[in-house]
Parts: sequence; structure tokens; C-alpha cells
Amino acid sequence: MGAGPVHDTLAALRLVDHHCHGVVTTGLDGPAFRSLLTEGADWPGISPFDSPVGVAVRRHCAPLLDLPRHAPAEEYLARRADLGAHEANRRFLAAAGTGLFCVDTGFTPQRLTTPGELAAMADAGAFEVVRLENVAEAVAAEGVEPGEYGERFRAAAERAVRRPGVVAVKSVAAYRTGFALDPARPSDAEVTAAAGPWLASGGRLADPVLVRHLLWTAVDLGLPLQLHTGFGDADIRMHRVDPTLLTDWLHLTAGTIPVLLLHCWPYQRQAAYLAAVFERVYVDVGLTLHYVGPARARAVLAEVLEITPFRKLLYSSDAYGVAEFYHLGALAFREGLSGLLQERVDADELSLSDALRIATWAGADNARQVYRFSATT
Amino acid sequence: MGAGPVHDTLAALRLVDHHCHGVVTTGLDGPAFRSLLTEGADWPGISPFDSPVGVAVRRHCAPLLDLPRHAPAEEYLARRADLGAHEANRRFLAAAGTGLFCVDTGFTPQRLTTPGELAAMADAGAFEVVRLENVAEAVAAEGVEPGEYGERFRAAAERAVRRPGVVAVKSVAAYRTGFALDPARPSDAEVTAAAGPWLASGGRLADPVLVRHLLWTAVDLGLPLQLHTGFGDADIRMHRVDPTLLTDWLHLTAGTIPVLLLHCWPYQRQAAYLAAVFERVYVDVGLTLHYVGPARARAVLAEVLEITPFRKLLYSSDAYGVAEFYHLGALAFREGLSGLLQERVDADELSLSDALRIATWAGADNARQVYRFSATT
Amino acid sequence: MGAGPVHDTLAALRLVDHHCHGVVTTGLDGPAFRSLLTEGADWPGISPFDSPVGVAVRRHCAPLLDLPRHAPAEEYLARRADLGAHEANRRFLAAAGTGLFCVDTGFTPQRLTTPGELAAMADAGAFEVVRLENVAEAVAAEGVEPGEYGERFRAAAERAVRRPGVVAVKSVAAYRTGFALDPARPSDAEVTAAAGPWLASGGRLADPVLVRHLLWTAVDLGLPLQLHTGFGDADIRMHRVDPTLLTDWLHLTAGTIPVLLLHCWPYQRQAAYLAAVFERVYVDVGLTLHYVGPARARAVLAEVLEITPFRKLLYSSDAYGVAEFYHLGALAFREGLSGLLQERVDADELSLSDALRIATWAGADNARQVYRFSATT
Repeated sequence: MGAGPVHDTLAALRLVDHHCHGVVTTGLDGPAFRSLLTEGADWPGISPFDSPVGVAVRRHCAPLLDLPRHAPAEEYLARRADLGAHEANRRFLAAAGTGLFCVDTGFTPQRLTTPGELAAMADAGAFEVVRLENVAEAVAAEGVEPGEYGERFRAAAERAVRRPGVVAVKSVAAYRTGFALDPARPSDAEVTAAAGPWLASGGRLADPVLVRHLLWTAVDLGLPLQLHTGFGDADIRMHRVDPTLLTDWLHLTAGTIPVLLLHCWPYQRQAAYLAAVFERVYVDVGLTLHYVGPARARAVLAEVLEITPFRKLLYSSDAYGVAEFYHLGALAFREGLSGLLQERVDADELSLSDALRIATWAGADNARQVYRFSATT
Repeated sequence: MGAGPVHDTLAALRLVDHHCHGVVTTGLDGPAFRSLLTEGADWPGISPFDSPVGVAVRRHCAPLLDLPRHAPAEEYLARRADLGAHEANRRFLAAAGTGLFCVDTGFTPQRLTTPGELAAMADAGAFEVVRLENVAEAVAAEGVEPGEYGERFRAAAERAVRRPGVVAVKSVAAYRTGFALDPARPSDAEVTAAAGPWLASGGRLADPVLVRHLLWTAVDLGLPLQLHTGFGDADIRMHRVDPTLLTDWLHLTAGTIPVLLLHCWPYQRQAAYLAAVFERVYVDVGLTLHYVGPARARAVLAEVLEITPFRKLLYSSDAYGVAEFYHLGALAFREGLSGLLQERVDADELSLSDALRIATWAGADNARQVYRFSATT
Repeated sequence: MGAGPVHDTLAALRLVDHHCHGVVTTGLDGPAFRSLLTEGADWPGISPFDSPVGVAVRRHCAPLLDLPRHAPAEEYLARRADLGAHEANRRFLAAAGTGLFCVDTGFTPQRLTTPGELAAMADAGAFEVVRLENVAEAVAAEGVEPGEYGERFRAAAERAVRRPGVVAVKSVAAYRTGFALDPARPSDAEVTAAAGPWLASGGRLADPVLVRHLLWTAVDLGLPLQLHTGFGDADIRMHRVDPTLLTDWLHLTAGTIPVLLLHCWPYQRQAAYLAAVFERVYVDVGLTLHYVGPARARAVLAEVLEITPFRKLLYSSDAYGVAEFYHLGALAFREGLSGLLQERVDADELSLSDALRIATWAGADNARQVYRFSATT
């Protein structure tokens, strides 16, 4: 664990976690917990505890459950069950030290906390991020003619984002088509032609024209757009989610909405490039940080910070399901960033006051600026 | 050189080298040795000794020939010639400390040791890996009608893998087409149509349909499949050998054979992603480790281990031709992995018992499990 | 800052900066200076000083203007204005310690020093690099029939490179089409067909056939070819400038001209691969080094040196506009490379004499060999 003034500043900072999900409020047995621990699955003979994230949970989360550091997985699961989900969640969320959450409410294969519930558990504030694919699919599920889809989706998205507490939209285009798309806004006729087969199929939105239409609708909505890029589960085609594939689209939409590239790994340098050359592009390495763990968080942050302007890096946990990830993500971010900055201060490559500014920007103020949070939120 | 309990455990561990080739048994003059030292060639004015691998040979191999560390290239070659190939090979193979070799017998532009000869030189066990492109090209060389090629190849591959000591198959699809292939199994008609021009050409197997057919035949064979990915000689088109290009194929074949991604650099993070989200995908950084040398082995291993489950990393040397690479690969693996793990133990990010388990898994037990070696092999 | 014999050798070495641009000789106000500081732009609220390169300027350039280390941006700009452009330029160029510059004279959106002026300011020698796109566009601007374009361009390029002091040509194909091109030399008919629409358009040269023709004309000219790869401004499509996309073209042109891959980041490992397997391919990480700054220069150099033969790495600053970049590029190179090499010497992975050879090769001698500078230049 680090030490020194940068460490102390980041340790004391109430983070703004600009992209995360809720937590499961019920108890989790071994298979359920292990499944939530990995972007893979709980395979026979290959426990998710035997991985970087599993080792990090045993090291950094076990003590919060009153267990010794590096407690065995079985003891961890037993103690967690004894304490109960509510108490475990409470402890990890308190340890995360997050002051504000932006909660993506659009991925709920199982029941998760609402933003309000999460905020109450963490004694923090919470805003909502609307996942646009869900809005589009809800419009389809309600029944709509192909020729009306474009306008109906736009109207539904407008309604969704005008609700109180909504501060951003999110797209998982990465999972649906990847980013090697025609960057141009599709015409109404193209949208109608593409909507026909999709609406008839009843499947999820994965048509390239409709994904483009969704991204352009985000531009019209005017709110910051969070984009999944890079690392995720097996549904990703990694070679199609390099964020630089979006360059033409970023040119066409320059000067409109902020675009926040989430996760990014292993394309963190490519994401940094975009943040360095496009005014409204921002990056984080959420999700990545708890999966690589504190042992590698500094290395990943060092790559993303090679050229990213210091007002362009944000913090997110991308925690989903288990409250451990709120704690681990925050810890890896604080330890990784403070280690990196303190090392540069020690080498006299960076002044201490600059290091403290950068830490506060990345941990909270950059998000406050992008999402226009008032000083008192 | 490292020290500490992880170092000692890895130093004492008899490695399983799950992918390597044989060694040249005759003496090697300067040009012949230098050519084997590089994935490039022995160019005028740019000696392969003046490269990371050349420096590593002079540092770590010279002492085994009774020379001082960092001996000049000329002295190295002269001493090697004096000792004779047999003695040099014996010394390097003994120093490698490998207990079991899986030998790819399919690349022999020059006469190499057989698996049995290699095992005898190293006082170790050896199994064989069948390179499927060789099987296909042998079928073509025997003469076959296009309509019979698919079945004849399958039958020949079945015969090849049923021989005693064969534990896996290998494909160099990376060298032939790269991985941006239609993932579907080709139909018999497609195979026949593609076989015609290929058989008429007399060339090597590089038709996309036939490469797909080969990969699907590997699935039918049921043995673990080793796939060259990433780094290799100038025949590689690096941008086409990113292993994530295989994602669709991995989805279609999920639940069948283990797939072992070899080398991987500079795509070690992409390979780690696949190992993290597909149950039967494994990775190594063989070949890479001796080319980057002990000075960078830890850095490369740190990247591949950012998210790779600890039961998914294997050791291989991919040594070819010169026995030095058996020693260097093993040394770079042991030093790199023990340095990385010990550092985490020292930082209390990892328990010592976990570090020792991970070291033993990666160095031997993971391969034993994938290839189903009995405890006594 | 480093210390030790490798550091001292590199500190004393007169560098050969094989790719750079001139400097602005007039005074620069805040917006003008900030714009030159970034590959992005001077955006409201996101000062280029709040970035890795900005921090490096305040740390390493402020003292040369008699300011304290880490001086605030406003003080830096004020002091620079007080001193005057001439004195500021003189100080940074002197501090760079460069003995020879190869100056790309083809990018002058504003008035820059000529090679001779730059050499005089730095008390150094200077050669010229001809940007081929400029030659082509000048031919078009003069008026030419489509059927004559190919020959007129070739003749103009021949004249341009036969001028005294020209040692190389440069292409920014990366900015125009990227490298996913048909590698074959286009026929005269293809060139004529492509020239028609381009000449009629009056735009910049970005037609794939004409870019291929330009690259093949470079081969005919016989001089070393510098190629922008990787990092640059927002005009780059990063996913199309991975230098391994050039592999087929490098095979077709093997044995002809030296090809020098510039910048490379984030594809420095891919560039290293090409340098390792193609006899006439060389790499540098110019531009990258001052943008990532001394804090990360060692890490980037470590990646490019993972497999690059030591006779294949060159130094360049790619400094443009502000003389600070000459100083920063040289400093980051010297500190990064000496830190990396000294660490290996200290670990006994490299002999001191080898480290000193490698430092001198990369800093000067490799460029001298590629460009055939005489010993006295």
C-alpha cells in the first residue's frame, strides 16, 4: 500500500464513480458469487478465485469481512453468507469512499439495486445513465411499424432522459456491431428498411444501420454518451471494439456531445490518443482496474496517462453485482494513481501541487465538469 | 537473478515444455548459428548477436560453455565449435531442467532431433505434436482427387494422431491465411471446389476454405490444438494473427477441444482476454520469452497475467534448432515469473502459498491437466 | 535524472536527429504556443499545459529560461516572451546537443526555419528530407494532363532529391490512406485513371492508387524512405497506420531502399517486429518521446527494444515549431535509453561495453550508416 501526500489526498477524496451498475441484494451461494466474479464463467476446475481478480478479492476484501488477508475462497464465501448480503454490501460500499454514482440501469439479467437504493446503502448521491439499446428494444417490444421506428425511438429516448436524475446515455454498440461502422447518419429510408427485418425478428438491436441511428440519436439528445470499448465478456469481438475505429464518427460529431470511452483495455493507448486529439472525448479504465487488480492498476494507468490530457481521465468502477468491485475498483484506482503520481513527484518529474490537482481531477472533478454536477452534489 | 522461495520453487521445478522443436545435432558454423538465432536473417553488418536475444545468449549461455558472462560472439562460436554440438546441446538441455517435452515434428527445413532423441539428450520424457498442414500436404503429394481430399485428409490425420506418443495437433494457419476467416465449417462441396486448384498448384496449403477445413478437422480429432499466434518470421502478417480474430470460431467450437494460443506477442493481452472468457482457451508466451530475453520476460508475463486465470497459463520454449533456446526460454520463464510473483508476495498482494501454486501450475501442472499426462509421466 | 557511465556517454553524445522540422522564429503568444504544444488543439478549459507534455515542458524547459522547475504556465509564457523567440530557440537547441539534423521541409502551415537556419542556430549540420506528397501536389498545381502525371511526378521527385543536402524522402501516406493498400506497383494506366479525378478536384493527394505510386516512386529514387506511422493529430485513422499493414509491400520491395518507421506508438512492438525480420527496416519513437515525456520514455523504449536489433533503432525528435521539443525529445531519449541500459548493466544482463555501443549506435551511428553520412559530417 502506498503512502505520502498524494496517497493521503486520494484516500480522503470522495470519488465520483461515473459508470457503474447496482449490486445484488440477496445472498449469493458459491456458484452465483463465482459467476459474478468473472467475465468468463464458473468453469469446473478453474475457479474464478484463481485469477487476478480472485486473488485481489481474497487480499483486499477478506479483511472487510473480518477475515485474514488472503483467506481461502471457501472461508470467504462462508463468512460472506454468515454476515448476510446486506452487511457485506454495506461494508464494501462504505470502504469504496464514493460520493456520487452514475448508474447504468440497463443491464439487469438479475435484480439489482436501483440508483436510489445504491445511494442509500453507500450514503452517497446517485444519478442514472440510460442505456439506449434498452430504450430501442422496449419500443420494438411495444410494437411499432418500421416507418415509425426512428421517430418513436427518438421520442422514447427523449422521455427517458428527461426523467429526474438522468445525466447521461450509454451505448453497448461494442457488443452489437463493434465500431467498424459507416459513420454517417442514416437516412430515414435506411432506418425504415433496416427496422423491418429487425422488428420482425424480435431479437436484440444489432443491425449496423440501427446502431448508427442509435449513436446519432445520442448526439441529438445532447447528453454525454458513455461507450463501452475494449474488455468485456465473450460477446465482445475485441478486434472490432478498438475505439479508434470511431474516428470518422468522432470527426462528424465533433463539437456536439461529450463521448466517454469506458474500460478501453487493451486499447488504453488508442483511447488516450482520441482523448488527446478530440476536444470532447474522455477516457476511463473502469472494469479493467478491478480485473487486473491493484498489482497491475498502476501499469495500466501509466499507459493510459502516457498522452491523455489530465482533464480527460475519469474514474469509474463499472462494478456490477457484487459490492466487492466497488471497493476493489476504488482501491485499485487510488493505489495505482497515487503510486504513479508520487513516483513522479519523488523523481521531481512532477510538482506535488500538480500531482494533487491531477488526482482530484481524475477522481472527481473531471466527472463533475463533464456531467455538470453542481458543487453541492 | 532472483532469490526467495518462489525463485527456489521454480528453480527446482521440472518444467513441462508443451511446445518446442528439436535441435540440430551437427556442428554449426557462424552463419548457420546466427541464422538460427533470429526470426530475421544473418544480414551483413547487423549481427543477430547485436539484438536482445544475442545479448541474452552471450550473458546466460556463455557460462555454460565455460566462458565468461557476455563473452564476445566470436569467442562464443569458437568455443561452441570446440566443445562440439553434442556436448553443447547436452549442457543447455540439462540446464533447462525440463521434465517433459511436447515436440512439434512438422517444421524441419533441416535435420533435427526426433522427440525420442531430444528426450534422451535431456534425460526427460517427450511426446509428439502433429502439424496438420504437413498431414494435408502429404496427402496432396501422394495424389488425390479433389472430391476425395476432405476424407483422405481426415483419415490421414486420424492415423497420424493415433500413433503412440502423440498428444496434440498444431496448426500454422497464422502463416497461411491468418485468422480473419469465415468461422463456419465448410461444406464438402466447398472443400472439393477449393481442393481442385490447390492440388493442381502443388503449393503449400493456404486456401482459406482448406485452412478452415483443417481447423474443423482438428475439432473432430478431439486432441488439444496448438495455434501459432502473433510473433514469428517475415511470413507472418501480424495484423491478421491477432488471436481475437478467432472469436467467432471459438464460439462455434466451444465445449470441444482445448485451444492453446502460442507465442501471442504483441497480442498477449488479447490472448489473455480469450483465456479469461473461453473455458477451453489457454495461453503461453513461448518464443517471445527468449527473444525478449530475461530483461523483459517479467514485463511480458505481467501483461499476459493481467487477466489470465492462473490455470490457463502454460510454459513453452518454442525452442528450435539451437539448444541455447531451451535454456534461455526456461531461464526467462523462471526468472520472469518468480520475479513477478515474489514482488507481489513482498507487497502483500499475493500470499506465498498462492504464489507457489501459481508457479507450479504454470510451469508444469496446467500442461499436465490439458494434455492429461498421468502423474508419473 | 539518471547517473552512471551510460548516462554520461549519452549526455556527451552529439545526437543525429534523423527526422525533425524547423522552428518558428517569431514570438508566440499563449494561444499560439499552446496550439504548438499539442497534437490536439488549445481547447477552452483543457490547457495543453495540463498534459504529460505540458508538465514536461514546465519541468525541463523552464530552468533553461531561468525559471524554477515546474513554473506555472503563465510565468513560462511571460518569461519566454521577455527573452524573445531567438534567445529561447537558441537555448533549447543548444541544450538538445544535436550534431546533425535531417529536416523534413514539407510541412509548413506557418513559416519555419530552413535547414540551414536551424543548423546555424544549433551550431550543427543539417540535411534535408523531401516530402513526396508536396512534390506530387506541386506537379498538380502547375497543371498536368492525367496521362503525364506519373512521369512528371517522377521527374520532379528526381530533381528534388538531387539538390545538395537531400538525404532522404518522406511520405505521409499514413495521413492520406493509411497502409491497408494493394502492395503492387500500379500500372501506368491505373495511375492515369486515378490522376484524372484527383487533378480535377484540386485536393490533396489521397487516392490509394496514387499513394501506392508515390511509395513505389520512392523505391525508384533509391534514397531512404521515412514513413509516418502511428501517433499524430486527429487526421490519423490509428487503426489504419499499424506499420505491419505494410508487410506485403515490404516483401515486394525487400532489398531496395531503407524504410524508416517514424513515431510508431502505440504500435512500437509491431514496428520492432518489422525491424527484426526485414533487413532494411528501421524504427524510431520520435514525437512519442516528448509527448509521453521523460516519465514514460523508458517504458516506451523498453517496448520497442524488446526485439529490435540494436543496429535498427534511431533517434529523432520530430520536433516541430517550438524549440522546446528539440530539448525535450533529446532529454527523454537520453534519460530513457540510459536508464534502461544502465538498469540492465546493474542487473548484469548487459555488459557495460555493450551498453555503451548500443547507446552510441542508437543516438548517432545507426543514422550515420543508413544515410551514409561521412565520418566528418
